[in-house]
Amino acid sequence: MKRTRMLIIAALMSLAASAQGVNESRIVTDTILSKVLGVKRAYTVLLPKGFDSGDTRRYPVLYLLHGMWGKNDDWVSQGRLKDVVDRLVASGEARPMVIVTPDAGGGDPNVYQNGYFDMDGWKYETFFFTELVPFIEKQFRTGGSKANRAIAGLSMGGGGATAYGLRHPDMFCAVYAMSALMDIPDGRETDAEKPDGKLAKLTRSVIDHSCVRFVAEADSQSRERLRSVQWFVDCGDDDFLLDRNIDFTRAMRHAAIPCQFRVRDGVHDWEYWHTALYLCLPFVSRNFSAQ
Amino acid sequence: MKRTRMLIIAALMSLAASAQGVNESRIVTDTILSKVLGVKRAYTVLLPKGFDSGDTRRYPVLYLLHGMWGKNDDWVSQGRLKDVVDRLVASGEARPMVIVTPDAGGGDPNVYQNGYFDMDGWKYETFFFTELVPFIEKQFRTGGSKANRAIAGLSMGGGGATAYGLRHPDMFCAVYAMSALMDIPDGRETDAEKPDGKLAKLTRSVIDHSCVRFVAEADSQSRERLRSVQWFVDCGDDDFLLDRNIDFTRAMRHAAIPCQFRVRDGVHDWEYWHTALYLCLPFVSRNFSAQ
Amino acid sequence: MKRTRMLIIAALMSLAASAQGVNESRIVTDTILSKVLGVKRAYTVLLPKGFDSGDTRRYPVLYLLHGMWGKNDDWVSQGRLKDVVDRLVASGEARPMVIVTPDAGGGDPNVYQNGYFDMDGWKYETFFFTELVPFIEKQFRTGGSKANRAIAGLSMGGGGATAYGLRHPDMFCAVYAMSALMDIPDGRETDAEKPDGKLAKLTRSVIDHSCVRFVAEADSQSRERLRSVQWFVDCGDDDFLLDRNIDFTRAMRHAAIPCQFRVRDGVHDWEYWHTALYLCLPFVSRNFSAQ
Amino acid sequence: MKRTRMLIIAALMSLAASAQGVNESRIVTDTILSKVLGVKRAYTVLLPKGFDSGDTRRYPVLYLLHGMWGKNDDWVSQGRLKDVVDRLVASGEARPMVIVTPDAGGGDPNVYQNGYFDMDGWKYETFFFTELVPFIEKQFRTGGSKANRAIAGLSMGGGGATAYGLRHPDMFCAVYAMSALMDIPDGRETDAEKPDGKLAKLTRSVIDHSCVRFVAEADSQSRERLRSVQWFVDCGDDDFLLDRNIDFTRAMRHAAIPCQFRVRDGVHDWEYWHTALYLCLPFVSRNFSAQ
Repeated sequence: MKRTRMLIIAALMSLAASAQGVNESRIVTDTILSKVLGVKRAYTVLLPKGFDSGDTRRYPVLYLLHGMWGKNDDWVSQGRLKDVVDRLVASGEARPMVIVTPDAGGGDPNVYQNGYFDMDGWKYETFFFTELVPFIEKQFRTGGSKANRAIAGLSMGGGGATAYGLRHPDMFCAVYAMSALMDIPDGRETDAEKPDGKLAKLTRSVIDHSCVRFVAEADSQSRERLRSVQWFVDCGDDDFLLDRNIDFTRAMRHAAIPCQFRVRDGVHDWEYWHTALYLCLPFVSRNFSAQ
Repeated sequence: MKRTRMLIIAALMSLAASAQGVNESRIVTDTILSKVLGVKRAYTVLLPKGFDSGDTRRYPVLYLLHGMWGKNDDWVSQGRLKDVVDRLVASGEARPMVIVTPDAGGGDPNVYQNGYFDMDGWKYETFFFTELVPFIEKQFRTGGSKANRAIAGLSMGGGGATAYGLRHPDMFCAVYAMSALMDIPDGRETDAEKPDGKLAKLTRSVIDHSCVRFVAEADSQSRERLRSVQWFVDCGDDDFLLDRNIDFTRAMRHAAIPCQFRVRDGVHDWEYWHTALYLCLPFVSRNFSAQ
Repeated sequence: MKRTRMLIIAALMSLAASAQGVNESRIVTDTILSKVLGVKRAYTVLLPKGFDSGDTRRYPVLYLLHGMWGKNDDWVSQGRLKDVVDRLVASGEARPMVIVTPDAGGGDPNVYQNGYFDMDGWKYETFFFTELVPFIEKQFRTGGSKANRAIAGLSMGGGGATAYGLRHPDMFCAVYAMSALMDIPDGRETDAEKPDGKLAKLTRSVIDHSCVRFVAEADSQSRERLRSVQWFVDCGDDDFLLDRNIDFTRAMRHAAIPCQFRVRDGVHDWEYWHTALYLCLPFVSRNFSAQ
Repeated sequence: MKRTRMLIIAALMSLAASAQGVNESRIVTDTILSKVLGVKRAYTVLLPKGFDSGDTRRYPVLYLLHGMWGKNDDWVSQGRLKDVVDRLVASGEARPMVIVTPDAGGGDPNVYQNGYFDMDGWKYETFFFTELVPFIEKQFRTGGSKANRAIAGLSMGGGGATAYGLRHPDMFCAVYAMSALMDIPDGRETDAEKPDGKLAKLTRSVIDHSCVRFVAEADSQSRERLRSVQWFVDCGDDDFLLDRNIDFTRAMRHAAIPCQFRVRDGVHDWEYWHTALYLCLPFVSRNFSAQ
């Protein structure tokens, strides 16, 4: 009995004194030198519990993309990724996996070039597929094939994840889009104040890579390929991008490509994306192939 | 159409550039000079949207207590209180209310005196009921009676909230306990290394204020008074305090005092308490009397 | 101990031997003779626990409408209304209320006249507001004013509930639409095989009472009145009526009338509507005025 | 447009006119002649969509047990098993599986012999493992090994499922217990009115097969074997069997055997067990081995 009492106080002490211990996932931040972009880019990786204990096991991998103005550690600091992962892996609702949050921004899109697509002086999509993915999957014993690779993201990163899934359906078994910038209506020239500025280039790249138009214009062969990916679209009922997500899911329905769709309570904020992880991680887990 | 496009970019810009606007709750941190404690104590208050626009409306009030090692701004910084409140008030699931998170610690309980009970040199319960509550409810036009006053807390603060509700059932219409330190088994002298240290005093105060024993020993009049409060106990299935919460709910059942009980997936961490707010705020909202 | 054992067996026996007891809501089915319709119409009523113990308390009232091919006892037999009510009232998530499920069909719409609107030979809306509501609210001490009256329904009844709310915003404080037939696109003449048949009349009445068009065409005074009602639209992601519900919520947004919107997993079936009760009953409960 | 209108009416017609189509699971009820029991026993099987289209694919199998007073079709008629399965398989949250609901009762336990354990004149456990399981798994191309076999049940069937898992840990990869009769405290002779009656025999068999005692008394080898099974215990906060489930999960904790535990809102009723399926089916799905 006295022992029980001391254990409780000791537990309260140790909880406070340190992080919650050795039995958990681990966050690593590092950089990759990109020849394509001509710069070093940061990335953050969540490694599952037990990852580096010398074994040779390969893990499935989730690429998790940030939004405009964001950067690689957003999902950890704002989205509390580690807490959710540790909870869901402990309960079995998510499989141990490597989660990569790359940097496609660096902050203010007026100052830093930003975005997931190839544009003048910023070939991010090329970097992603020819440099980042091969590097990560070698470095961290992950993925290696579509069956063990998924992608997700929020806002601009939700659009990026969806566009990557649409344009590379052989690369991902599952795509989860949160509050995604699926499209910017109106294909005309941007009339931003500085038409050659970084933000104008970014805007044009989103218009050019409209996820809605891609599906609407997909031929029957392309549609068939898209059916080999599992799709999930999740957007708040008070999100200013809701109509873009409706447009996308409607296009998917008309193209007969199965796509889960949820409209939950919420706006365009981290509270929404944090809770989205509770749906996203089980979703990709059950779509990864067996180990 | 062009207008739609610009609105989307503008929305993304403005989301990033600032907090989400004028239509929301607001956080204030200040201090109260306590004669009882002989020191200034900090407190943090969440004021509902529109609070200070000159009206005279009174709001219901929730006192929300932190845990051991914690302090007044924990619920805002770690618990993301404002985000959850804004979401639930917008959807109507929580009523606009004032939420007060006082400081009963200040950090390391080996260094700072800590705890919600009266002990030698630290009459916190006296301070709470004779100084803090009257001050807050005058200053912020809140509560004023049991029908519009609730209390909740996590860990040591969950035990504090429950003990306050048990010992002052005329003060609160509803009590919500998260991962609560309801008790420390074994009533013998503490054998902590420093029996006169701050932590030993705190430990003894929790033993002396056991919520489980209070209910078990309550006479029929006391039980009847406790039935005038709405009770909710919420604890993770992997929380090291689960057995203490089971003991408490069992005592309540034996005493025929209705008490909601939930065991959800989780441990003793902020991920649990953050999600607990989604249950706690609607619970207290529906138990506040009409405006 | 022996006593505990006998209690468990006794509890299992009594659970099986009977319904779960006296402390619960109660279902009554009866008829009302309608002068407007020229026939007797059945209705089913759920009375809250303790309703008829001689007190004079008034209860809030929810009118809960069935779908095409349905009838008054669908919500009880298919929707398991009583089980959900007893659960949510016990936990405090729903307030004790009277729930009325009238009969606007009687079965096959090719055989029986059907629908919630006035049409040739079937003035159901007139019956509802001039006969049914006054009768129910006198008979069962309910509602009596907008502040304590809500309406909800599924499919054709979801459209009926919404249209009633739109056309009588002074009558209901809250409207909850499930998988609602908000509209049938295309206003042209019906080309059903029997243009004068019951089904053709019903179809035309839904077209004529389009909820989407009503909102789109509402002037600023009408919109202001609609803002005095709380709206909730809930539709499955694989429901064939999803686009109609999207159209309606979009019209509400353009008209700046706040409206909750949820798209959950599911199709047009009782599994969806059963779970919708867990959202609907708390929603109307928190929008009823205080007792 | 006219086409859309006709499609909506046609959809409403077809929904009403028939069950929801060919793309769904299917219920079969049949009997097995048991030499062990000396009688024919009924069983009901849910076969996944596409099961009998001539392929040779094997499916994982879930044995789902009814409660006292119950029989084989309870889970279909009261638990709405097919609706939940179709929903969760469509969304990917549950894997296509065969679900078997055997008959261990037949109704009134005073009249019909009842229960999942071997007792005088009723060797049900022997029947289950030596006749039913081999028969089902041959007949329906299921399971075949622990990795693809799970068991679950409610009340007496929850106790049965747990006891089977404890006593045959090599047979099941996962066990899900709902409101389970884990034990009847007090091991003394039953003092039921008819000590040789069917109910008294049943009571004694539950006492003899206490799940709580089994875990408490398990040696280290046995505990290690039990860790090869995934366990989930789910019980309502107002269920009269809650303390038995607490006892069991506590025993598991003391034995260091991981076990999920949830206490949700509710009592000992079908509303609880129906919603439990939404947790149970994903749980067993993620614990089945890959196909």
